[in-house]
Amino acid sequence: MEKYRVAIVGATGLLGQGIFSILEQRSFPVDKVSLLATDDTVGRTIYASRNSYTVKAANKSEFNDIDIAFFVAGDDASRRLVPQAVESGATVIDSSSVFRQEPDVPLVIPEVNAADIQAHRGIISSPNCSSVLLNMVIYPLHRVNRVKRVIVSTYQSTSGLGLPAMDELTLQTRQIMAGENPKSNIFPHEIGFNVLPQIDVFLDNGYTREEWQLLEETRKILHNNDILVSATCVRVPTLKGHCQAATLEFSSEINTDFAGDTLAKAPGIKVMDDTDINLYPHPRIVAGTDLVMVGRIRQDVMNLYGLGLWIAADNTRKGTALNMVQIAEEINKTARVKAGGRK
Amino acid sequence: MEKYRVAIVGATGLLGQGIFSILEQRSFPVDKVSLLATDDTVGRTIYASRNSYTVKAANKSEFNDIDIAFFVAGDDASRRLVPQAVESGATVIDSSSVFRQEPDVPLVIPEVNAADIQAHRGIISSPNCSSVLLNMVIYPLHRVNRVKRVIVSTYQSTSGLGLPAMDELTLQTRQIMAGENPKSNIFPHEIGFNVLPQIDVFLDNGYTREEWQLLEETRKILHNNDILVSATCVRVPTLKGHCQAATLEFSSEINTDFAGDTLAKAPGIKVMDDTDINLYPHPRIVAGTDLVMVGRIRQDVMNLYGLGLWIAADNTRKGTALNMVQIAEEINKTARVKAGGRK
Repeated sequence: MEKYRVAIVGATGLLGQGIFSILEQRSFPVDKVSLLATDDTVGRTIYASRNSYTVKAANKSEFNDIDIAFFVAGDDASRRLVPQAVESGATVIDSSSVFRQEPDVPLVIPEVNAADIQAHRGIISSPNCSSVLLNMVIYPLHRVNRVKRVIVSTYQSTSGLGLPAMDELTLQTRQIMAGENPKSNIFPHEIGFNVLPQIDVFLDNGYTREEWQLLEETRKILHNNDILVSATCVRVPTLKGHCQAATLEFSSEINTDFAGDTLAKAPGIKVMDDTDINLYPHPRIVAGTDLVMVGRIRQDVMNLYGLGLWIAADNTRKGTALNMVQIAEEINKTARVKAGGRK
Repeated sequence: MEKYRVAIVGATGLLGQGIFSILEQRSFPVDKVSLLATDDTVGRTIYASRNSYTVKAANKSEFNDIDIAFFVAGDDASRRLVPQAVESGATVIDSSSVFRQEPDVPLVIPEVNAADIQAHRGIISSPNCSSVLLNMVIYPLHRVNRVKRVIVSTYQSTSGLGLPAMDELTLQTRQIMAGENPKSNIFPHEIGFNVLPQIDVFLDNGYTREEWQLLEETRKILHNNDILVSATCVRVPTLKGHCQAATLEFSSEINTDFAGDTLAKAPGIKVMDDTDINLYPHPRIVAGTDLVMVGRIRQDVMNLYGLGLWIAADNTRKGTALNMVQIAEEINKTARVKAGGRK
């Protein structure tokens, strides 16, 4: 069995730590791991189950003997270092938005469009976590009844911006309960006991980049330039777990039982939907799990072509880190097929 | 000037306290106030700026000399006591959902359908707070360009269920930060650092009563049985201030400047919308204010008939208590007109 020399750029962040532990949990065939960073965590020691690792600076030379490099250090780091890693011969799995719309960069959710990976030329992008959640759910339905339009409102946790953002929430929460006035460094306004209808920067058309990405990434992932996605992306004062309230408009009639059955059979999805016992997914249930959960499946008000549903998943796992490891698993699968089953 | 003998049923709750202080803030012509309750707060002393009041049990005899009775003690109390208050000659302004769909009960937002008050036979209902917010915003637009469909997702604060619910949020928040496991009494699941896609009970069609009310109340308030409202109502861990992400579909093209101007001129609304400086309303800004604020006004993705917008207001004020006092002000206005301007 082939083993891979792996680098994680951004290894000390929430997603880097996630990738590191998920590689072990899923027994990804790792030969050696380089933990790299672009910030002041360089030099830190990371203790894992069998080894300890020293975090090194993410310089070009570090990629010389790397097969797969996971990038989770943000847009600037990816813009600067991904081309160097590719030049050094590594295959990059990138979480940033920098390359997602490049024509020769596959944008992949393995359960949805694993085959796209074949076309890569060194970089494979993992979608925005909101796009992962939404497309995991609309794809199985879209396959059997073309989705024409999605209206989606999100309820996104602070972990979408990493550990410092989670810390800002808990600090502000403490301050507000103590009657103090919190200051915001990471969020545009207070997030403690608050809700902010802004994620990422605003574009000229009034949407945020996060909202517009949901449209553009969905089109690329589904290979469908006709689908419309109208999004409102909202930060809520939670720690882990993103949710989405989605209204789907299909090409023909759809009923809720059929939709529920279709979703229940789809890989990576768990239907959690029993209103008799107030059962539906929510952040505290999905945090730490690998599944995208769906509930509140209902016929749209007087529209047989429409469906309402509620999506929740751990944004740090299936939303990003797990999805990236799954992409690596697809690369490994292909390599084994190409090698004619070499062990 | 006519003065009114006023009763507040549920006087010790969040909304009762709100009505009591708003009556004074807006100099409503009060002759005397009876503070009534249906729970163990009977006997409590309430200190106001000039007087102290003893809370009395809400029995039929208490309504004998009352002109206007505000009911904010919940559905059961309204079901039992509103008919008695009406029989005793009081005009009831009711916040419960019990009478809202009765044909001879006006359902009123004064900025939208004040004229409906004339038809009352003793009871005037104040809409669900979510209906107030939504209709305050869609009505001025609907007047000039008929709204055909609304898709709305809500971000509702714990104060929608009163003071004990706010206490449950802060207690759970403390417990979670201390590493303890919170128990939920008021909410169906944990609300601390969580999001719950359930407000009120579920109906057979998969919607909650809160969601379905948004459809039915909008139709009654706008006198329009064709409008569609698809709602997902969600509780978020905030204290005061409800928000809504709404997508509106109009009968003809609408542009964002026109919509913004129309809303800016509408009574009770403040447009707060400048994405260049990250300006939009959010719970911490609207809490304690009387206005319904609107931001994030944008053309829907590739649909000239559509508009996206973001609504926020203090659910305990314009959402309920203030709206009820405004209904009383309309009654007073009518009475003065009827009396030929008698002072």
